[in-house]
Amino acid sequence: MHFEGLASDLPSLRGFRIGAIDAGLYAHFGKPTRPDLALLASAADCAAAAVFTTNLVKAAPVLLDQAHLAANPSAIRAVLINTASANACTGERGLADAAQCAAWVAEALGIRKEQVLVMSTGVIGAYLPMLRMRRGIQQLAAQLSDAPEAWQAAARAIMTTDTRPKLAHAKFGDAALIGIAKGAGMIAPNMATMLSLIATDVRIAPDLLQRLLRQAADESFNRIVVDGDMSTNDTLLIMANGLSSAQVDEQNAAAFQAALTALCTRLAQAIVRDGEGATKFITLHISGARNVAEARQIGNAIATSALVKTAFYGGDPNWGRILAAAGRAGVPLDPTRLALWYNDFQLVADGAPLNYDEARAKLHAQQREIVVRLDLGLGQAEVTLWTCDLSHDYVSINGHYRT
Amino acid sequence: MHFEGLASDLPSLRGFRIGAIDAGLYAHFGKPTRPDLALLASAADCAAAAVFTTNLVKAAPVLLDQAHLAANPSAIRAVLINTASANACTGERGLADAAQCAAWVAEALGIRKEQVLVMSTGVIGAYLPMLRMRRGIQQLAAQLSDAPEAWQAAARAIMTTDTRPKLAHAKFGDAALIGIAKGAGMIAPNMATMLSLIATDVRIAPDLLQRLLRQAADESFNRIVVDGDMSTNDTLLIMANGLSSAQVDEQNAAAFQAALTALCTRLAQAIVRDGEGATKFITLHISGARNVAEARQIGNAIATSALVKTAFYGGDPNWGRILAAAGRAGVPLDPTRLALWYNDFQLVADGAPLNYDEARAKLHAQQREIVVRLDLGLGQAEVTLWTCDLSHDYVSINGHYRT
Repeated sequence: MHFEGLASDLPSLRGFRIGAIDAGLYAHFGKPTRPDLALLASAADCAAAAVFTTNLVKAAPVLLDQAHLAANPSAIRAVLINTASANACTGERGLADAAQCAAWVAEALGIRKEQVLVMSTGVIGAYLPMLRMRRGIQQLAAQLSDAPEAWQAAARAIMTTDTRPKLAHAKFGDAALIGIAKGAGMIAPNMATMLSLIATDVRIAPDLLQRLLRQAADESFNRIVVDGDMSTNDTLLIMANGLSSAQVDEQNAAAFQAALTALCTRLAQAIVRDGEGATKFITLHISGARNVAEARQIGNAIATSALVKTAFYGGDPNWGRILAAAGRAGVPLDPTRLALWYNDFQLVADGAPLNYDEARAKLHAQQREIVVRLDLGLGQAEVTLWTCDLSHDYVSINGHYRT
Repeated sequence: MHFEGLASDLPSLRGFRIGAIDAGLYAHFGKPTRPDLALLASAADCAAAAVFTTNLVKAAPVLLDQAHLAANPSAIRAVLINTASANACTGERGLADAAQCAAWVAEALGIRKEQVLVMSTGVIGAYLPMLRMRRGIQQLAAQLSDAPEAWQAAARAIMTTDTRPKLAHAKFGDAALIGIAKGAGMIAPNMATMLSLIATDVRIAPDLLQRLLRQAADESFNRIVVDGDMSTNDTLLIMANGLSSAQVDEQNAAAFQAALTALCTRLAQAIVRDGEGATKFITLHISGARNVAEARQIGNAIATSALVKTAFYGGDPNWGRILAAAGRAGVPLDPTRLALWYNDFQLVADGAPLNYDEARAKLHAQQREIVVRLDLGLGQAEVTLWTCDLSHDYVSINGHYRT
C-alpha cells in the first residue's frame, strides 16, 4: 500500500487509460484557470459498483449514474469527472446536460453512452458550461495515457478546496488497484462522502464487487467527519475490467476486501488530513458501547460538534465538551461511567476529572495527531472514527468559497 | 415589552430582591476578575417551573434543582447563579457542593435549603471554589435590592462569553415579569438552551405555570440555534410569588401565555444576536411542510450546517448549501418542489435557480439581518427559527475559551 502521488511507485493496471486537462470550466465562472476535467477509460467492459450520497437532493450526475449502473453493471467503460460546477439543483436541464456529456464521451471513445458514468463537483446550482465540456471531452479523449503521471494529473484535476492530490494503490496477486479521491469540505459519515474513483484489473462479478465496496466504504469513508455536512454529489465508484489473471470470487473475497478496505481507508484518512483548514488529525475511539450503532452515533455527535472541534484547534484538552456532546447524541448512557483518554493519558474516570497534571494534558492536546478515547462503560462494542479540527481557515475557505 | 438593560424602564416587581457581586470565582481560576455571582430572593413562597437540558450529562445544579422543584413546586424562595464553573462532570463531590451552596443561601436568608435553587455556568469539569462561594453568598445576601439597577447587575453577572447583558420585561395587569438570560455558545433547540431566570408577581398554580413555560420555551428558546451544541446546564426557570393582585388561571392563561412567550422570544433572540462571534441575525422560515416536526427538523439541519453558516458569514447567497442541508435532514422531501427566497427576493423555484441578478442576491445576503425562506411545496405547515452565522471570532472564542 502506497500513498499520495508517488507516481514512480504506481503499479501498472492493464487496459485503463486516464487523463486530465484544463477545459476552461473554472475560467467560465471567472475563476483562476486550472485542470478541471478528467476521464478514465477501460479497453474492456468493466464490472462496476458504487456508493452514492444518501442526500435526498441528488445531483444530476448521481441520478444518471444510478440509471446507467442499474442497466449496465457489467459493461461500464468510462467515467468523466469535472470540477467547477456540481451540476446539482439544476433540474431537467442539469439531467439533460449530464446525459449529453456521457453521449459526447461515448462518441469520442466509440462506446455506447449508457456505458459512461459522470461525476461532478463544485458549486451547487450552476449549470455546466456545455460548449467547454464538449471541446474538453474531445480533446481529452485523444490524449489518454496509461502512464503513472496521468493518474497523478487526474488526482490533481478533481481537487476543489483540497490542498493535495489523493492517490493510493494496492496490489492483489497479479492485479492492482489504483484509487483517487477528492474531499476537503462537506464530509460526513453515512454515505460515500466525496468523490472517489478506483480502478482495478481483477475479474469480479458486479454484485460481489458492490457488496465488497459497500463494506469497504462502511469501514473507511463512512467513518470520517470534516464538518458533518453531506453533499448532493458524493460518489465512490469502482471499475474492474478483468484484464489481469486475478479473479475474485467467494473463495478469496476476504483477501480482496482487505486490500480494498485498506485502500479506501488511506484515501479517507487523506481526506480528513486535508480537511478544509484542518490543523489536527483526530482518531476518535469510542469503546464500551452496547453496540456499534450507538458507538457511532456518539462518535458522530462528538466529531461534528463545533465546540469540540474548536477546542481541538486551540489545543485545549477541554474534555467537558466531549462529554457534553456524547450526552446529547440521543443514545442512552450513564454519565457516571464515562472515562476519557488523550492518547494514553487518562483525564476522566467515572464521569469526573482525575487529579491530572493540566500541563501534561495540554501537551497531548497540542499534538498534531491525537487519539481520543471515550469509554462508555456499558458494553463491549467499539468504533473508530477520524476527524479534524475547526479552524479560522475553515471559516475563511467556506465564507468565500463561491465568490 | 422592553428590552436590554434600560433600567429606568423596569416595572416594579413586588417582593423580589436581587443582587450580584464579584465573589472571586474567576480569580480562583486565574482569570480577570468580574461579577460572577447573583442571587434572587422572594419575600414569599413562589410557584416555580423550569425547563432543563435534555442532555444526558446533566450538571449537578440541574440534578439538585429537579429534586428541589419536585419536592417544593409551590415554595421556592431563592435562586443562586454562579459563573466561572459549570459544576458539571464533577460527580458526587459536585452534587454535594451544589447542595452545600443551597444550604448556605438558606442559612443566610432564613429559609429551608429545599427552597433554594442553584444554576451554574462556565467550564465543565471544574469544581466550585467553595470557600469563595460561602463568603460570596454571605456578602450577597446582605445587599439584595429591589432597585432596577440590581436586575441589571445580575444580568451582567451571569454573562460568560456574552458581550451584552440580556434583560427583558413585560406587564401583566397589575403584575409584571422581568427576565434575564445568558447564552452565547452551545445554543441548540430541543431544550432550554442556556440560563434564563424570570420573576413575576402574578399568582399562579405551579402546574399551570409549568405548562405555560414549556409552551413559551417551545416557541422561543427551542427555536434558536447558535452552534447546535446542547449544554449540560441549560435551565429556564420562572418564579411567581403571587404578591400582586393579578391572578393567572385557565380563564386568562392565554393572555399570560402571550406575555410570557413574547418575553422569552425577546430573550432568545437576544441570545442569537449575541451568539459567539455572530455578525448576522438570520430568520429562517420553513414553509410548505407536511407537518411542523418535519419543518423544524429541516430548519435545524440548515441552521446547524457549518457550510451554510460560513456562507452567511461571507455574505454569499450560496443557496445550494441550504438545499443540500435540507436534503440530508432525514425528512422526506421532493427536490423538484423546493423554492427559496432571501428576504423578498426569490432565487430558486422547482428546485433549480431562477435567472436572477447575482448582484441583487448578494446585496440581500450581505445585510446584517436576513429572512431566508425555504418552501418545501408539500403541505401547509411552517416554522420559524432564528440563527446566526459562523465567523472567525466564533473559532477564536471557542478555540481558547478555557485557557
